[in-house]
Amino acid sequence: MTTFNEKLEKYAELIVKVGVNVQPNQKVVINSSIESAPLSRLITKKAYEAGASDVIINWADEKITLLRYQNSPIDIFEQAPIHRAAERIELAHENAVFISVISDNPDLLKGVDGKKIAAGQKAMGQALEEFRQMIQSNTISWTVVGAASEGWAAKVFPDLPQSEQVPALWETIFETTRINTTDPVQTWKNHDETLNNKATYLNEQQYSALHYTAPGTDLTIGLPKNHVWVGAGSVNKQGKEFMANMPTEEVFSCAEKNSVNGYVSSTKPLSYAGNIIDKFKIIFKDGRIIDVEAEQGEDILKDLVATDEGSHYLGEVALVPDPSPISQSGILFYNTLFDENASNHLAIGSAYAFNIKGGEDMSREELEQAGVNSSVTHVDFMIGSDKMNIDGITATGDRVPVFRNGDWAF
Amino acid sequence: MTTFNEKLEKYAELIVKVGVNVQPNQKVVINSSIESAPLSRLITKKAYEAGASDVIINWADEKITLLRYQNSPIDIFEQAPIHRAAERIELAHENAVFISVISDNPDLLKGVDGKKIAAGQKAMGQALEEFRQMIQSNTISWTVVGAASEGWAAKVFPDLPQSEQVPALWETIFETTRINTTDPVQTWKNHDETLNNKATYLNEQQYSALHYTAPGTDLTIGLPKNHVWVGAGSVNKQGKEFMANMPTEEVFSCAEKNSVNGYVSSTKPLSYAGNIIDKFKIIFKDGRIIDVEAEQGEDILKDLVATDEGSHYLGEVALVPDPSPISQSGILFYNTLFDENASNHLAIGSAYAFNIKGGEDMSREELEQAGVNSSVTHVDFMIGSDKMNIDGITATGDRVPVFRNGDWAF
Repeated sequence: MTTFNEKLEKYAELIVKVGVNVQPNQKVVINSSIESAPLSRLITKKAYEAGASDVIINWADEKITLLRYQNSPIDIFEQAPIHRAAERIELAHENAVFISVISDNPDLLKGVDGKKIAAGQKAMGQALEEFRQMIQSNTISWTVVGAASEGWAAKVFPDLPQSEQVPALWETIFETTRINTTDPVQTWKNHDETLNNKATYLNEQQYSALHYTAPGTDLTIGLPKNHVWVGAGSVNKQGKEFMANMPTEEVFSCAEKNSVNGYVSSTKPLSYAGNIIDKFKIIFKDGRIIDVEAEQGEDILKDLVATDEGSHYLGEVALVPDPSPISQSGILFYNTLFDENASNHLAIGSAYAFNIKGGEDMSREELEQAGVNSSVTHVDFMIGSDKMNIDGITATGDRVPVFRNGDWAF
Repeated sequence: MTTFNEKLEKYAELIVKVGVNVQPNQKVVINSSIESAPLSRLITKKAYEAGASDVIINWADEKITLLRYQNSPIDIFEQAPIHRAAERIELAHENAVFISVISDNPDLLKGVDGKKIAAGQKAMGQALEEFRQMIQSNTISWTVVGAASEGWAAKVFPDLPQSEQVPALWETIFETTRINTTDPVQTWKNHDETLNNKATYLNEQQYSALHYTAPGTDLTIGLPKNHVWVGAGSVNKQGKEFMANMPTEEVFSCAEKNSVNGYVSSTKPLSYAGNIIDKFKIIFKDGRIIDVEAEQGEDILKDLVATDEGSHYLGEVALVPDPSPISQSGILFYNTLFDENASNHLAIGSAYAFNIKGGEDMSREELEQAGVNSSVTHVDFMIGSDKMNIDGITATGDRVPVFRNGDWAF
């Protein structure tokens, strides 16, 4: 039997080899909570084994974050972290790779003044604008991965005894990232190919729009000319493959920002900035969000949409079949990295430049003209279920089934 | 009986109130290992209670530091951390206070290429030059305090069972920082007064030099005109008191950099940059170090002296009676913060500007002309014992006993 430490080491190796695909003499940056130190130390070890020249860890601690939001005045959150951002942008220009180890307690900032949260998100988003553009044009390699923490595990497995919560979440992470297979690196290659086949088919169709119907949802999303559907794996500007999310089960593209009309309802809670937004509905007219309502976290959702002009529009459109392994686990993760891979989802805010042909080399103005949205934020939210149907609308107005009852229809 | 957590909280409060004396709306910066998170979180809480506007923690992890020194090439260590330094200098200009929680494993970098260590120390020292000048002129408030860690405790108490090492080191830290007294804040005020009385006496004498004799030591250290002896507490440019080291048992001033002649032998091991330098002798001529020898860590010591021109000269001269509580504990800490307060010591490298009258407002050139040394480094080393005698030499050449058999002679 494989021990926990052996699995953790295989996971670290997968992150280094498949997640960011570390090359010799490359710098590696890790964002990690101090609670995730055992994993981040193993990633560091594996990165050096792969030839990394330096590993820089940006540590954070949720207990400090909470004290800060509870005690610091709002002007502190309005100050952009310019030196940290400058360091990050310089490292990106040096072709470093970026690993985010996420382990957030979904309820961390519950009850905190939403204005502070909005200010903090906005200041951070603005300071990192150049970095985000490099991410969204595949200039550099990056990955987001999960690590079990006490706060998060308690939210996912509230009915388990406390001592079993963290191990249960770890085991779920290992299962969904295919660590329990004989050769995870090869398993991921096969998985990548499966998703790429779906993307290839959709790219050949070049639907002009998708029409979503489900209880609480009747939404038409225009797709820009020459849009590109992308599967799991990406390729950076140096031609090196990487996997931006692990796990990932999605095939995604971008919306034509001014051609979204109708309404859409969430099907899973959204954990955003230490708060949960649940049972919400968003209404669009000519691409713009004109109204939102939520049974939980409505103020936070409204602040999110108000971040900037671009956060009033859709960026990403992603398809995930309801029978995906993560969905079938029946587990609600309260964490977008996992929940978005159990469900069709959309993202408010910026779109990825590579989701339109030649987009990596377009200026922001050219992207905007092509209908590709930009914003300082990008937040995915889940809308899929086994009751969702999606039609592809062709250039001639014909309707072709893309999803039926939450699963691929082709 | 006071529990461990109660003592830790009293310690955090002492650090905030007496160590850096946090003022309302002041920013607080903490350097801490992730292993010291329980203390650093309490310091954060107490700082906010004292009215801090923001608490910024710069976390480090020794396991990552070790992997970095083992694996990264030397050019990585030669790169100055310019963005981190810029952030720190900006915070200093905003009148932030700085807390260093140290818990270093004294043997961490044993066996690591000394050239990497020297390069890293030098790059860091150069990047932080402006910050160091602000520290050394009392422009800002700062403090250095200890926290028990597994690696450090194992070195200090090798004969205890592993489970008892960290608790034993914590108890020693609480004892030496006077946490076990009824009112530690008041106890520190009284202690400060005692040390200030010694400093006042020495300032009145204005000896032109001190002559040290002990086994392996025959050293004369010239003292500059208008030198100032300082006790435990300091006052920053805004007139706020702070305590730069906790514990502290010393009264210190600066050497006249070109008037040091003879030889001096260490009496305790020196833990420097993750290595131990032990049983060493330093020979001076006209202030300059002309030879060093060490039974352990000679290469590291030679690299330290070679850091820059200023690291060939003495900065600080500090007097600590051998019967000090830390010395009487009989514990060898392998940590300068504690060991220097058990023993007379000297520092290679930069001197504090406030150790000469009006020095806080002098330029570097003026300080140099007054005989006050500057360097990118400042490293204390221990020379005291119960066999040490020190004479003060007056302007007229008379000799007055200052220390006899390791204790005050006045």
